Amino acid sequence: LLCMANVHANVHVNVNVSPRLEPTAASQVTNTDSSAQQQATHVEISLHINKLYQVETKNESFKIDAYLVMRWHKPDNTIEPGVFENIQVQQARQFGLWLPVIEFINVLGRREIANQRVTISSDNWVEYNERFTTTFTTDMDFRQFPFDQQTFSVLMEPFTYDERQLVISKAQVFPKVLGNALDGQWSQLSAPQASVSRQSYSHLSNNGEPDVNFSRLTIAVDVARKSDFYIWQFILPLTLIIIASWAVFWIAGFGERLGTSFTLMLTVVAYNFYTGNLLPHLPYTTLIERLVIFSYVSIFAAILLIVINRVRHPENSANTRLIKTCRYLFPIGFILMMALLIWWNQNL
Amino acid sequence: LLCMANVHANVHVNVNVSPRLEPTAASQVTNTDSSAQQQATHVEISLHINKLYQVETKNESFKIDAYLVMRWHKPDNTIEPGVFENIQVQQARQFGLWLPVIEFINVLGRREIANQRVTISSDNWVEYNERFTTTFTTDMDFRQFPFDQQTFSVLMEPFTYDERQLVISKAQVFPKVLGNALDGQWSQLSAPQASVSRQSYSHLSNNGEPDVNFSRLTIAVDVARKSDFYIWQFILPLTLIIIASWAVFWIAGFGERLGTSFTLMLTVVAYNFYTGNLLPHLPYTTLIERLVIFSYVSIFAAILLIVINRVRHPENSANTRLIKTCRYLFPIGFILMMALLIWWNQNL
Amino acid sequence: LLCMANVHANVHVNVNVSPRLEPTAASQVTNTDSSAQQQATHVEISLHINKLYQVETKNESFKIDAYLVMRWHKPDNTIEPGVFENIQVQQARQFGLWLPVIEFINVLGRREIANQRVTISSDNWVEYNERFTTTFTTDMDFRQFPFDQQTFSVLMEPFTYDERQLVISKAQVFPKVLGNALDGQWSQLSAPQASVSRQSYSHLSNNGEPDVNFSRLTIAVDVARKSDFYIWQFILPLTLIIIASWAVFWIAGFGERLGTSFTLMLTVVAYNFYTGNLLPHLPYTTLIERLVIFSYVSIFAAILLIVINRVRHPENSANTRLIKTCRYLFPIGFILMMALLIWWNQNL
Amino acid sequence: LLCMANVHANVHVNVNVSPRLEPTAASQVTNTDSSAQQQATHVEISLHINKLYQVETKNESFKIDAYLVMRWHKPDNTIEPGVFENIQVQQARQFGLWLPVIEFINVLGRREIANQRVTISSDNWVEYNERFTTTFTTDMDFRQFPFDQQTFSVLMEPFTYDERQLVISKAQVFPKVLGNALDGQWSQLSAPQASVSRQSYSHLSNNGEPDVNFSRLTIAVDVARKSDFYIWQFILPLTLIIIASWAVFWIAGFGERLGTSFTLMLTVVAYNFYTGNLLPHLPYTTLIERLVIFSYVSIFAAILLIVINRVRHPENSANTRLIKTCRYLFPIGFILMMALLIWWNQNL
Amino acid sequence: LLCMANVHANVHVNVNVSPRLEPTAASQVTNTDSSAQQQATHVEISLHINKLYQVETKNESFKIDAYLVMRWHKPDNTIEPGVFENIQVQQARQFGLWLPVIEFINVLGRREIANQRVTISSDNWVEYNERFTTTFTTDMDFRQFPFDQQTFSVLMEPFTYDERQLVISKAQVFPKVLGNALDGQWSQLSAPQASVSRQSYSHLSNNGEPDVNFSRLTIAVDVARKSDFYIWQFILPLTLIIIASWAVFWIAGFGERLGTSFTLMLTVVAYNFYTGNLLPHLPYTTLIERLVIFSYVSIFAAILLIVINRVRHPENSANTRLIKTCRYLFPIGFILMMALLIWWNQNL
Repeated sequence: LLCMANVHANVHVNVNVSPRLEPTAASQVTNTDSSAQQQATHVEISLHINKLYQVETKNESFKIDAYLVMRWHKPDNTIEPGVFENIQVQQARQFGLWLPVIEFINVLGRREIANQRVTISSDNWVEYNERFTTTFTTDMDFRQFPFDQQTFSVLMEPFTYDERQLVISKAQVFPKVLGNALDGQWSQLSAPQASVSRQSYSHLSNNGEPDVNFSRLTIAVDVARKSDFYIWQFILPLTLIIIASWAVFWIAGFGERLGTSFTLMLTVVAYNFYTGNLLPHLPYTTLIERLVIFSYVSIFAAILLIVINRVRHPENSANTRLIKTCRYLFPIGFILMMALLIWWNQNL
Repeated sequence: LLCMANVHANVHVNVNVSPRLEPTAASQVTNTDSSAQQQATHVEISLHINKLYQVETKNESFKIDAYLVMRWHKPDNTIEPGVFENIQVQQARQFGLWLPVIEFINVLGRREIANQRVTISSDNWVEYNERFTTTFTTDMDFRQFPFDQQTFSVLMEPFTYDERQLVISKAQVFPKVLGNALDGQWSQLSAPQASVSRQSYSHLSNNGEPDVNFSRLTIAVDVARKSDFYIWQFILPLTLIIIASWAVFWIAGFGERLGTSFTLMLTVVAYNFYTGNLLPHLPYTTLIERLVIFSYVSIFAAILLIVINRVRHPENSANTRLIKTCRYLFPIGFILMMALLIWWNQNL
Repeated sequence: LLCMANVHANVHVNVNVSPRLEPTAASQVTNTDSSAQQQATHVEISLHINKLYQVETKNESFKIDAYLVMRWHKPDNTIEPGVFENIQVQQARQFGLWLPVIEFINVLGRREIANQRVTISSDNWVEYNERFTTTFTTDMDFRQFPFDQQTFSVLMEPFTYDERQLVISKAQVFPKVLGNALDGQWSQLSAPQASVSRQSYSHLSNNGEPDVNFSRLTIAVDVARKSDFYIWQFILPLTLIIIASWAVFWIAGFGERLGTSFTLMLTVVAYNFYTGNLLPHLPYTTLIERLVIFSYVSIFAAILLIVINRVRHPENSANTRLIKTCRYLFPIGFILMMALLIWWNQNL
Repeated sequence: LLCMANVHANVHVNVNVSPRLEPTAASQVTNTDSSAQQQATHVEISLHINKLYQVETKNESFKIDAYLVMRWHKPDNTIEPGVFENIQVQQARQFGLWLPVIEFINVLGRREIANQRVTISSDNWVEYNERFTTTFTTDMDFRQFPFDQQTFSVLMEPFTYDERQLVISKAQVFPKVLGNALDGQWSQLSAPQASVSRQSYSHLSNNGEPDVNFSRLTIAVDVARKSDFYIWQFILPLTLIIIASWAVFWIAGFGERLGTSFTLMLTVVAYNFYTGNLLPHLPYTTLIERLVIFSYVSIFAAILLIVINRVRHPENSANTRLIKTCRYLFPIGFILMMALLIWWNQNL
Repeated sequence: LLCMANVHANVHVNVNVSPRLEPTAASQVTNTDSSAQQQATHVEISLHINKLYQVETKNESFKIDAYLVMRWHKPDNTIEPGVFENIQVQQARQFGLWLPVIEFINVLGRREIANQRVTISSDNWVEYNERFTTTFTTDMDFRQFPFDQQTFSVLMEPFTYDERQLVISKAQVFPKVLGNALDGQWSQLSAPQASVSRQSYSHLSNNGEPDVNFSRLTIAVDVARKSDFYIWQFILPLTLIIIASWAVFWIAGFGERLGTSFTLMLTVVAYNFYTGNLLPHLPYTTLIERLVIFSYVSIFAAILLIVINRVRHPENSANTRLIKTCRYLFPIGFILMMALLIWWNQNL
């Protein structure tokens, strides 16, 4: 956001430290045209996660507030040792300081940088440190919702340089900080892992040439949803309502039976629309949606049997054998269904 | 975001590489005033789609996170070969590097650029690569909703130069990347297509002169909605409710019949308002809305027939011929209506 | 976003093209201190509307994505002919290029500019072209909602210079483009109109002096709401419910009559809250709200008459003359009310 | 957003108009270290309000789109007369033009500036004019909602300089413009007032020294809510429902009485949640909330009395004296309560 | 946002005040490579809170609008005394003014700065003052909701320099200003506290070396929620509904009993979903959710007992001993539960 013109205008003085137009990376990173013998720059990257928050199931995204620390060795002495903060970092880039441009592969939009710093030590090691906030997208599987486990991952690659020029040599993620900073609705299953892999882009290479490979850093945080909220606020009431719905088999009047059943139907509709707002409109049903669908089917079956019973016993439909069977059949069906759902859930 | 003053202040030295005020495009692109014999610049454009997401039916828009790669031949040697990243790209523009300004025709707002890069090879080929995120608008047709198919398209044109000066010579979109990155609620019908066409703007040309033509790049992604969610969470419950509503023809009491019908009416109102929030307020009805309207009409017809039956048989209205006919008429009407809706849907 | 230091540092060379501090407008536009004989600059303005969208009735605002094209004659030769794109436009301003600063009078916030361009021809005509997106506010009248017609207007004025210095000499809006780009929920009544008027600001002039007049460009797009959605999803169901509510006059039991009426009341409450979210909380009622209020009053009147009937005929309240009269009175009242509403709506 | 390097590189030429590092205010505003005899700069401020909109009761905030005009006398001739628009204003600041930094005390976030201009006349009077949009927060009292009156105020103070250095000498707000631009849901009670006061900050001064005083400009717009919407869409239906609820005292069956009462209870719950979304969760109840609470209590009292009546007259509970008394008691109680609410409201 | 090129291009003149590339902090703050004997810079920090608002329980965040004032002693005379406002502050940084970069540890995103100022006094004391708005996140405990107390805290640390180089020597927060500016839904329990502590980062130090310690400033505002809204709008109605639900034990008809109970169930479902939108989906239940769960269980128990009673007394189920017992049991159970909830709440 600023610029400089460090002009020493003495007649016979050459400007020794001037902003350069030449691509500053050229001197740091081996160029694509260069011979393969040249050594790649090794960058050590660590991520210190302050907070993993706003996990949005509707968009399958989460936000991270973290420090990104990169460390590498500088081949020359163009920039003298020192500490550069915020706008001074931009200035230093102007004057020839090379910084590796790292791309977050699964980011949504730009990252917001609160503070950044470059520290150049006297032995030519450079450390870049920034605090950033941004949104990532990650594939989420909600079939077991609300008992689901997810892996929140962050993928990074150098934006420009492939393996021959830039290698992520060391990857770290600091779990201590994460420990007490995870979104309160999730519990961490294990310490976050950072690993470096090789990502191949075959469509970027020309015919006959070998694939272009990039050094990829993957950070994975395995988490499990804390399902207490959904048990207390969702599964418990819905279970109570399903159980209570069997009471219609004791009601004598046919009309009252149906009226009560339809009030129950309306209640399940409310649950149906509430779940529809919790998750994206997925092509599969979640555990909790299967429970809602079971409720519909259960109440519908009750209405159907009540009407069938009525057709077969028009005079006295209160305590026929069919109704009496239902009093046992529905609880058994419910228990079987719940067992099936739990078994299904554990084998997904 | 930065500026430079590359001043070689030796007394007798001319500044050879200085920022230029002259329109930098002039040397690259044939000017409008130039003779028609001059050759147009040929730009090859490819789009690597990372993610197509946030398809919003309410706004008829979708977001794309992609790489835009443009490649062209540079006529002169003003800028030496090298790699320019992010702010260095802006610097290079200052020093005379020409970049084609491409406009996304159906974009909403500006595009957000996360990283950008220019690579100039020793044989004067320039490659521009940027990662961007932005929102596009595309015409959507929801009449078959939730069984609808849409074409998400991205249109690009040079902002300034017409066909005589700038031609999109090659268009590519990479489907591999798209494969696993499409919004989970849609399935891809075929590989995305990229094509170049000629867009004519007659109102931009003066009288008598030929039309102004621009080179237009169109990328089209044909997708179909995964309708499972709507079948399980919407059509199934609503169908169960419609079927259950026929139970009123077995209820004896006139008052209870009506009471039950009105509870059903209230349930359909809930469905009505829920669909009203899924889609924009369109001047046509969707398949799912037609189903809701049919529910209204069906329940209303039941109420009407019940009242008519009551008027004609004030004493014993329970099992008249009219009511008995309804027990068969309504299921038949429902099956016919569903068949009609499905037939209608397939012939839209 | 950038800066330049075009320093030709040869000892005896004067900098001929340097950024100027002097108000660049001074040479282009006649200054307020200048004599009145000086000619005003004539600017031709045209707006090419790509999309008119996100019409928000709650905020009485709409968004426009359009090209703003301005064309005027440059009195001097400071800037040579050529094409300037995006950041080059800013550079050219630095070096003395004057651009008319046009203000959107009814804008909300800043406009977002995707691309901009200045073309200077060899005969000193300058054309400025920008693609922008922004939000406008316009007075909307919802009394006839959902059968309302609105005029979406865009007002522009020079920010600084009054008529004596800057005149909008020609105004155009291109309807072709608009044709297929209007928000799908509205239909266009006539071709959009562009007109230039004189806006007088009496409070800006000193006592005794004549009023200050500005050249104002007004673009008006007359549109009508496509009301099909509201007819099918709102008026039809509500009408069915009102008609169905008359069934209570055939119910025998007093308690069931009331119970049914209150379920109907609850249904109308849902409609009431739904309309409350469609529009701002206006000091007048819309057509659709009047229909909802009529529903309330109708059901309330039914309850009242049922109770009065009960008080007068405690033993046998089922088929009294009052109830029998209601069976005819309510339909007639409804038809009269609808006729009144339609007549009222057409005479607003 | 730009920078300049106005370098006249002739060997013997001094740069006469160069950007200065020295605090530019020093020459304009009397410094804190200066002697008290120096005169303070007098700034005349006027606000031309275009639109006062998006009054959000939930956040107690409103937005203003306005012109801020400041006028003061420049002591020296550093900058020559002329007109500076937008980026030229920033340039002029670079070259030593002093602008008073005015702070909006009750603003939320930054203000968005669409256009800005500085006009320097030949007699050294400077006029600064900007069009801005921003959000203000103001204390709102909702106890009388929806019959409440509010004062929307805008507070301004110099950011840095106290009374000894900078005085707001004249304050104006233009009511004409406001007349037709107020948010449609509010009516203006009187012309907006602008006044200048002295704001004392005792904690900023050192011990023993007199308080630091700042010149404060207060603009106050007195408005009253147009309550028609709430009367027609809220109070009328709720009143009808309360009145209709008395019908339960004519119902014969004990069960039907209770069932109807509970349907009414559910309807009032809907109203309760709807009001909960209109306003912030205040520690006091508004008029409209008191009406809802009264509805709850009224229906609860009815249920209680019906049960008590049942306990005392198990056989024939239809027309006991208690029930007959209620038929008169409840309407009287309602009228008394309404009178009390209205009286209470007028005496808040 | 601007840049300068203060070039005195006289042949024999050295540029005395030129923007420096050298890390400007080096001269102010003792470098990490320096000897430990060097003194750390002492910075006094005070926060003047204007408004603490938008407390969002869903995100556990709040916004602060405040002035951040920092004061420290400058070791050299590079920058002369004076006042720098807004963009002049950036300029001064360019010319070598050092500012401590303070990081808000628990911030979400960047802070928005409305105005900023640097005052350099003649005795080399520098005062930095900025008005900012930003969002903070703080751990909130909702178990006692809506009777909960929270501590809103703001944590600050130097971004780069540890204790050996930069010490926060004095911390102040001004409570007067806060007094009348706290979000209206919270009451302040005591004056806000500012304290300085030492934060140890063991993972930042190398093996064998002592821990790296940073000077941390903590500001804590203890607040209690004003629970009146929730008592009047939530607990009162829900309590009335629970009490009214006991009326079913006086209803004679079995079907009517159940019908009424299910209407009550539906009402509690509405309350359940409403609380689900007030707070995040926490792994524990709040006081208010426990009340809702109790309502569910209470109504479910009533339905269960009614059915059990029916099974045991099929002929005359109206006034059995079981039902009569319930008439006393449920009120007693409710009082016990409320006592338990209140006791539990006070001992959390």
